[in-house]
Formats: sequence, C-alpha cells, structure tokens
Amino acid sequence: MNDATINLPRRLSDLETPALVLDQDRMEQNIARMRASLARFDVAFRPHVKTSKSIQVTRATLGQASGPITVSTLKEAEYFAANGFTDILYAVGIVPGKFDHVIRLRQQGIKLTVVLDSLEMAQALCDRARQENTRFDVMIEIDSDGHRSGVVPDAPELLDIGRCLAAGGQHLAGVITHAGNSYNCRSITAIRQMAQQERDAAVGCAERLRAAGIACPAVSIGSTPTAMFAGNLDGVSEVRAGVFVFGDLVMAGLGVCRQQDIALSVLTTVIGHQKEKGWIITDAGWMAMSRDRGTSKQAVDQGYGLVCDLGGALLPDVLMVDANQEHGVIAHRSGDPAQTPDLPIGTMLRIVPNHACATGAQHSRYHVVSRDAADILDVWERFRGW
Amino acid sequence: MNDATINLPRRLSDLETPALVLDQDRMEQNIARMRASLARFDVAFRPHVKTSKSIQVTRATLGQASGPITVSTLKEAEYFAANGFTDILYAVGIVPGKFDHVIRLRQQGIKLTVVLDSLEMAQALCDRARQENTRFDVMIEIDSDGHRSGVVPDAPELLDIGRCLAAGGQHLAGVITHAGNSYNCRSITAIRQMAQQERDAAVGCAERLRAAGIACPAVSIGSTPTAMFAGNLDGVSEVRAGVFVFGDLVMAGLGVCRQQDIALSVLTTVIGHQKEKGWIITDAGWMAMSRDRGTSKQAVDQGYGLVCDLGGALLPDVLMVDANQEHGVIAHRSGDPAQTPDLPIGTMLRIVPNHACATGAQHSRYHVVSRDAADILDVWERFRGW
Repeated sequence: MNDATINLPRRLSDLETPALVLDQDRMEQNIARMRASLARFDVAFRPHVKTSKSIQVTRATLGQASGPITVSTLKEAEYFAANGFTDILYAVGIVPGKFDHVIRLRQQGIKLTVVLDSLEMAQALCDRARQENTRFDVMIEIDSDGHRSGVVPDAPELLDIGRCLAAGGQHLAGVITHAGNSYNCRSITAIRQMAQQERDAAVGCAERLRAAGIACPAVSIGSTPTAMFAGNLDGVSEVRAGVFVFGDLVMAGLGVCRQQDIALSVLTTVIGHQKEKGWIITDAGWMAMSRDRGTSKQAVDQGYGLVCDLGGALLPDVLMVDANQEHGVIAHRSGDPAQTPDLPIGTMLRIVPNHACATGAQHSRYHVVSRDAADILDVWERFRGW
Repeated sequence: MNDATINLPRRLSDLETPALVLDQDRMEQNIARMRASLARFDVAFRPHVKTSKSIQVTRATLGQASGPITVSTLKEAEYFAANGFTDILYAVGIVPGKFDHVIRLRQQGIKLTVVLDSLEMAQALCDRARQENTRFDVMIEIDSDGHRSGVVPDAPELLDIGRCLAAGGQHLAGVITHAGNSYNCRSITAIRQMAQQERDAAVGCAERLRAAGIACPAVSIGSTPTAMFAGNLDGVSEVRAGVFVFGDLVMAGLGVCRQQDIALSVLTTVIGHQKEKGWIITDAGWMAMSRDRGTSKQAVDQGYGLVCDLGGALLPDVLMVDANQEHGVIAHRSGDPAQTPDLPIGTMLRIVPNHACATGAQHSRYHVVSRDAADILDVWERFRGW
C-alpha cells in the first residue's frame, strides 16, 4: 500500500469541503422511475447528458455502454464520442461557426444530429454541405410553449425549411421540441396539459411536413416534468430528459420528485456562527452551490438549498439562506434564532440544491455514496467547458 | 508551421463560442486606478485572487512575480504557492478539517495566515499546534458591517480569543475585516461611510487587543468599493480588494467603475430569433454567464448582462434578458421588438457580466485582447475547484 492509497478518502468525513456528493441508490431509483414512466409508451429514450456531464451516470441511465444521447455543447459530443457513444443529438441551434467541428465529429463515424429553426440557417447548412461534399442529419426545432427557440407550429416557414433541406440533399431526421415552460407549472394538472401541448405541437409539425411530401421520420420531445407526466405520446418517437437523474428542489417543488429522492448534494463544514442572528456560517458559498435560486419563483422558496446531516437526512426547516463566494449562511426558515439547530464548528452537512445542472457544474467530480451512508464507493469525473 | 499552429485562433471571430474575453488595457487601467487610490495612504496592498484565479492577472496586479495575496480556498493557496507566491492570507474561517492542508503548505515555506472568529476555534488551533509542535499565523476576523462572519467589535470574546492564542504560543498577526455590505450601498457617500465604519471597527479592535497587552501588529481591511473610496485609513496596515481588477455591472451600478471600464466579457454567437417578441437567441446561457443577477437589487437591473459588439462597444440598451443552460435571450430594454437591433445568425457579440467573480468561474481560460480589438494576444489559464 503506497501513500496515495493510504491518503485516498474513504469516507465523506475525510474530504476537504466543499465537495459534491452523489447518492447512487437515489440516482438509480430516479432512473427506474423515468424508465417506468416511458415504458407506458412506444418511445425511445434519449437522455440529456448536460445534467451530469458524466460517462458513468449516463451509462447507468441507459443501462448499457452506449446509446442515443442528447448534448448541449459540442464539447459534450466530443467527450461522449470518445467514450463510445455514437448517436448524439446536439440540441442547441447550430451556427456556421460550428460546422467544422460537427463535420470533424461526423468524419469520426459519429451520427451527430444538429438542430435549426430558420430558413436562413437551413440555407447556410445546405451551402456548406455542398462545399464540403457532405450531408448533415438535421432536426427542425419547434417552439411548443413560447419559452425559447423554435419555429411556431403553424408558421409557413416550417415547410420552407423542410423543402430547403430536402432540395439541398440534407437528411431531415425529424422535428424536436422542449417544453421548458413545464418548469414554471404550478400543478401536476398543468404539467399534464403542457405535456399534451408539447406532443401535439411536435406531432402536428411532423404531420404538416409529411402532408407536404417532406419525409420527417422522428418526433423528439421532452423535459423532465412532461416526460414524467405525459398521458399520450401517440406519434412521438423519442423522449429526452436530463435533470430527473438527480432531481433537485425545483423538481420537488413541482411535484416531479420528492425532496428525499434528490441524489445530489454539496458537502460542507460549519466554520462559525452569528448566534444572536441564528446564523450558521459554512464553507459552501455560491461557488459550490451556484447562484441558482430556482425555487424563488415557486410557492416555497428554499433559499440556496435545504440542509441535511452527513448521512443525507433533511434537518427540518433548516435552509441555506444566503451565499457569498466561499461562505454560506444557514438558518431556520422561521428566522427565529432559538430554532437554529446547535451545530458546532467542524460539523459536516450536506446541502440539497435548487438546480442539479447548475450546482453540478461548479464541481469537477462526484463522490459516490450509498443511501444514508458516508462511505465513498467511487469518484466519478465530470467535465466542463466548451 | 504545423497543423496546431495553423489552427490556433488568432482573432475572437475564430473562436468557438461561448468563450471568456479579457480586455488587457481595461484591466491595466483598473489596476492603475486602484493603486492610485491606495497610494493616498501608507498601506500595503494584498489583492484577492479569487476574482481572477490567474497567475498572470495577479502578477499584473502586483507588478512583480510574487507579493502578498489573499485567497478564498486552499486550492488557490496551493496553486499560487506553486507559482512563487509565499505570503498568502486564507480569508475564510479555518476549521480543524483543513489544519493538515495548512500545515503542509507552511512546511513548504509558505507564510500562510489563517483566520478565525471564535474562542472555540482558537482553542482547537492551539491544541493542534501543540500536538504538531508547530505555530500558526492567525488573524481574528471582525464583523464590521453585520453581513457575514466575524467577532462583533465590542464583544468580550475578542480579548478571550487574543489571550487564548497568545497563551497557546500562536502568532496573532492581526485583525481582519471585509465590509461586504458595501456592495449594497446606494451612493458614493454611503460607500465612504462604510469605508470609515470598516476602518474604525478594525482599528478599534486592534487597539482593544493592544490595550489588553496582546500584540496585534496588522490591521487588514478591504472590499473594492471601500478601498476605492476610503477617506481615512489611519491605523490600517493593508488593504484587500478583488473584483476591481475586472470591474462588472454591479460595480458600475455602485459608481465604483464605469461600464466601459469592465474588462471581462463573454463572447457569444447569435443562433436564432423570435422576431415577433424582439428576442435574439444566443449560445451563451447561464453556464457561460453564471446565474448571478447582482444588478437585480440595484436601481437599474441589467438582466444577465449588457451586450457589446465584437470589439467591445456597448449596444445602447440591449440586454441579455433571460438564460437557459446553453441559450441566452437578448432584447431591447424597452421590450419593444421594433427596437431590437438587427443581428443576423452568426453575429458575434460580447456580454458584460453582473459579477466578474461568478462569470469568470464558469470558464477555464481568458482570451486576452487589447482595447477595442479582436486579435487574441494571449490565452491565460484559470483554475477552479477546492
């Protein structure tokens, strides 16, 4: 046994804080729930890897070494391609400045599909394909909920784009939409309606293209809330979802998971107190948690996160109420100093985040543990950047 | 010339976006302003490297290869120590779990000073020093503005901590405070008052310790706003500041810098439009900008940032109004679609951030340019993590 082995942290309590913790049992349960939800329908599953940016998490999600995935950056595409994933959908609108990168990946044998939502971009893509004597796989993005990008479902431009791509010899793989506004729903009924709207918009656009004689094989939809509560996916060929794998307080606030399902947390240490104010000061600030305050728009604002003990059990109504770069402030939800728990300097805690994608992005690795346990089973790397 | 040389980006327009841009001329001007402000007083300057996490930026700030610095993590301490910096103040409260790391760095010859604000921690430190047969350099943190950590200036505990450290044979290097509430000031007059309050609290505590017969050589204060507008630093020995080096929209909103002084921006590409809404969609979302919305608390909310052309000139009243993970939404401040500028797909823009520390942290490197220019002079690495 050499020094490196001896020094390898074996338990969470050996780690220098802050550090990112992943409860593998909770994660696997979250994956099983999503797979069970999708098994109700005849659809493929194309998980979005932007949440975890981890090969191990993605393999656990797919239950196999590779499989169809969704990425949010070409860096993700490159990293997953280098690790055996060959069917990759880049779900952010392509621009000419990224054509070279896409072509490079496709020349390595990766089926990398790109997305666009304008005739301007379709034309640029066809022009470039002609110059390079190549062919792209393309999906047309549909705006099913008004929250971001995409062609409005009844827009004449949809058919113009389809015709342009067909005439340019490109492979129109299908249509894609993401009902991101499902994150702002206030009830499960509203999420169900949003799921129907998402499905109807995408399937309707595919049918419009087909009626115009333009082949449109795939219909890709998805967000964690709509994927979990969809009642009808007739005509949909694949579903995408990302944050379900970890869950977070925004998802719990929506009713998409329970607080005790959340698999991701930030390990921190109590570094001081302001006792008159009922404040506990920790070494997890916004650098460790991110600045995401997603629950501030929900019925119950969870501050920068909910506080758990070292084993992952929630301390009732104890919140991270404020954040500086490397300082967190913990207090009781009531603001009453008398209700702040007595946690001496050196106490280790775990903070459950608002938004798993944002909090994960602040860290370079996951310390993997079992449910309610503090032994480190494994360390999984995350990557970052563009 | 090999392939790697040929492919090295020479201009911002060659970069794949998003990417972080640093205007070296603006940075040097910001450094000169801070040094001129501090030259009014007989104080040392101990810049906070948490903003840049860059050796090159810190050398430019100090005007020499090494010098006294402030860090927010032991990872920063380690990185700067490995690059020739030997006088390092770790300005986040120390905990027993980090003693080993501190001792390791000190054994390498680094004068690493730690900070604490409780008798509980002072006692733990003395105990550990005794066990290890070593001695720490320690500063007592003072809470000069009620915003975070520190001993309240008139607290009896101040003297108890001082006596404990002295009795335990530790080196009490001095007192330290940070008027973080200066970020919430509404006028320059309020910042000047905050600077006086910061100075008075720290110097007053040093005098209390000395009056009790406890040596307290140094008085360390600072924040960018108070360092820039202090009127009296009598009795202060050193000043710390971090974000001044880049500036940001929060600092501009405070009147501490001008918008055109901000040296940091995120390069992005227009990827689409929602023309009826006056939205321009880009590939810089919150992953590239951070979720920081610091200006939302100020008189003028700048959204996720202000939009500049590729050369760094502000487009009047054009804001980044919303962010998804890898999508940004740009619009005119009025919300009037007719006023949104015509920026076709592929147009490259630069977004000036709310908070330079938070936006910088989302990136791995700086692309260094001259003022109003798009040639890349150099690439400087940033590090991250704990």
